[in-house]
Amino acid sequence: MKIEVCYTPELIKQFDLKGKIVVVIDVLRATSCMVAGMGSGVETIRPVSSIEACTELGAKGYIMAGERGGKKVEHFNMGNSPFEYMEDAVRGKKVATTTTNGTKAIELSADADEIIVGAFLNLSAVVNYLENKGKDIVLFCAGWKGRYNLEDSLFAGAVCNGLRNTAAFEDDATLSALFLYQSMKDDLSYYISRSNHAARLSSFGILRDIEYCAKIDEFSVVPKLLDDHLVL
Amino acid sequence: MKIEVCYTPELIKQFDLKGKIVVVIDVLRATSCMVAGMGSGVETIRPVSSIEACTELGAKGYIMAGERGGKKVEHFNMGNSPFEYMEDAVRGKKVATTTTNGTKAIELSADADEIIVGAFLNLSAVVNYLENKGKDIVLFCAGWKGRYNLEDSLFAGAVCNGLRNTAAFEDDATLSALFLYQSMKDDLSYYISRSNHAARLSSFGILRDIEYCAKIDEFSVVPKLLDDHLVL
Repeated sequence: MKIEVCYTPELIKQFDLKGKIVVVIDVLRATSCMVAGMGSGVETIRPVSSIEACTELGAKGYIMAGERGGKKVEHFNMGNSPFEYMEDAVRGKKVATTTTNGTKAIELSADADEIIVGAFLNLSAVVNYLENKGKDIVLFCAGWKGRYNLEDSLFAGAVCNGLRNTAAFEDDATLSALFLYQSMKDDLSYYISRSNHAARLSSFGILRDIEYCAKIDEFSVVPKLLDDHLVL
Repeated sequence: MKIEVCYTPELIKQFDLKGKIVVVIDVLRATSCMVAGMGSGVETIRPVSSIEACTELGAKGYIMAGERGGKKVEHFNMGNSPFEYMEDAVRGKKVATTTTNGTKAIELSADADEIIVGAFLNLSAVVNYLENKGKDIVLFCAGWKGRYNLEDSLFAGAVCNGLRNTAAFEDDATLSALFLYQSMKDDLSYYISRSNHAARLSSFGILRDIEYCAKIDEFSVVPKLLDDHLVL
């Protein structure tokens, strides 16, 4: 079981995803929302890349969710807050979502054998899942507009830390992610709140979201992509 | 004085280099060689991208140096070992060099106001130089074939550490490099020797080079690019 870390979508072409499990990571906030939603009874979530595709699914009965530049798309039912995904109104429903970085990372993972989504909210569940499967792993950080970001790299490091006795650490990015996590883990939410993306989001007044996305193991679900839909 | 870190040439397009000082970093071994050479009395070093360009300069009296895939180019005078750059035979001479990653990073830095080269061998000199200039800085890791690598990121972190009280740390990559360095700094040569590139180089029997490139402050020179040549 080999584990690798890809820090941004710009670098994913350097990885051979065939036969591997890809963990898509967009802590602030796409994959945190997906975990919160699937862990709170949402039936399925369909990630799509465009507002148009999301709107079309809306006409077919999906709840339309998503943001552009951190803000809710105007005619959508909800934005990209984990709290919205945990409301009664979405329980048992199908949600179509489009986000800036997370959805793109999912699309770029198409070659993988299996795509799951991870966030601090389901950290242990993800680690256990990967341990049980025993396949090679690529931890794919969605980043921000193609750039390296702190919170996704930290989560990748947290998964590495969980698998440090069972997986083979062969590449430099993986070793770095592990050390980064180990050096920040005692004050994780502080560092996440200091990240560039948290600073951007803070300007929209959603500090509550950032704090929630830094929580560990609120859910034990591992959403998995099947026929373009996230299922449990 | 703002400081940013670019982890690989694949990401350099995300940075605006205009008006900034770029520090090109290729610890194993291009920039270590440049520092060792310029610090040992080589008159000038001209980095070029191709074997052909290097051969042409050889016909004009330059000593031809460089590697491909870690090995000396067959008809060249020397390879890419810092020890070759410190020999009497190159003192006072002009050297033309072509390497896999370092030369490419220098070419991609063309928009910068100033390009200097850094390695552990001249760490404090680089930090002092940047501190005195007071300009915005991009620490540009040459990586390996476009991938993230440990030794260059660690050096970037070492520079960040040296400037932690004077420079503004605004981006996530910079904060991560700083933490990575701080968590590995007590056993730097061990971690560098564990890196992917060190493992590749070890198979060529050049452990001595790797150990030397992890040495700090052997030289106090800061080679700077001027009209395509490195000068002091």
